[in-house]
Amino acid sequence: MRTVRVLGVDPGLTRCGVGIVDGAPGRPCSLVDVAVITSDPGQDITDRLLNLERELTVLIDKHRPESVAVERVFSQHNVGSVIGTAQASAVAILAAARFGLPLYTYTPSEVKAAVTGSGQADKKQMTTMVTRLLRLDTPPRPADAADALALAICHVWRGGTKQKLENALRKAISNDR
Amino acid sequence: MRTVRVLGVDPGLTRCGVGIVDGAPGRPCSLVDVAVITSDPGQDITDRLLNLERELTVLIDKHRPESVAVERVFSQHNVGSVIGTAQASAVAILAAARFGLPLYTYTPSEVKAAVTGSGQADKKQMTTMVTRLLRLDTPPRPADAADALALAICHVWRGGTKQKLENALRKAISNDR
Repeated sequence: MRTVRVLGVDPGLTRCGVGIVDGAPGRPCSLVDVAVITSDPGQDITDRLLNLERELTVLIDKHRPESVAVERVFSQHNVGSVIGTAQASAVAILAAARFGLPLYTYTPSEVKAAVTGSGQADKKQMTTMVTRLLRLDTPPRPADAADALALAICHVWRGGTKQKLENALRKAISNDR
Repeated sequence: MRTVRVLGVDPGLTRCGVGIVDGAPGRPCSLVDVAVITSDPGQDITDRLLNLERELTVLIDKHRPESVAVERVFSQHNVGSVIGTAQASAVAILAAARFGLPLYTYTPSEVKAAVTGSGQADKKQMTTMVTRLLRLDTPPRPADAADALALAICHVWRGGTKQKLENALRKAISNDR
């Protein structure tokens, strides 16, 4: 099985987690890099979005992943942060598009299920599993970093199967109209 | 008083209103262009965001506004559409930044108050006033188009005063830390 490099993004405007792993479906993954891109809520929104775009671009350019996995934003998210989360996800999606990288989105439960076996796992359990799966000496901190790594691991293991199904379904629906 | 050209954006992923007007504070504005950029909710999110970015870029490039006014997204917005609205606003903010244009945000009540005198005005009243203020023969349709024009008019008349105050305040606060 060929090894792939995936960049995972846990979107956020104040703290955006980015995790890059190498791996193949059903085999252990290895950590390439992990970062949290931060911005100050008191800063101008333009500067915050530009900063996030710039930092994400640097990481993509440095590590050249084959695909990007971004957490899917839901309105059930914390209402106070959903706007920043949605804006950050748009920046991540456009950054991936500029490098011509395929983009995949996963819900938090899908990521939890892939990494811990349960869609209801809590943050502590997620961090424990990410630390174990990547054979790290210490847990990645803060939680945004662990979540971004979990997204990347989730995508490596699911190997894009889900997105292929979704694309086929979308095509079938639009042909049907 | 010098005439300025402002591009207003009523952000949305399915329908994004864009209105461009010329005017000066306290004087009538005139319509330059108005458009609604649409995308299909069944389409891939990357394609939707890229399409919006491309269309906005074409309009900015064609009309060369001096500034861009975007509606500020609130979590009180319709929860079903707040994510698309937030993502579209991020695309608009980055598009303005790429042209080096100053960006201003206004709440819906600020726009309503500027255009109708009341922060509680309804859609019908807004459309009526935008039609009157721009001396149009027929009301701009759909509502997203009227809202985008109202944003642009709001910014022309407020002449960036509000943002200057906010910037000064932000500076004062950050110096104080």
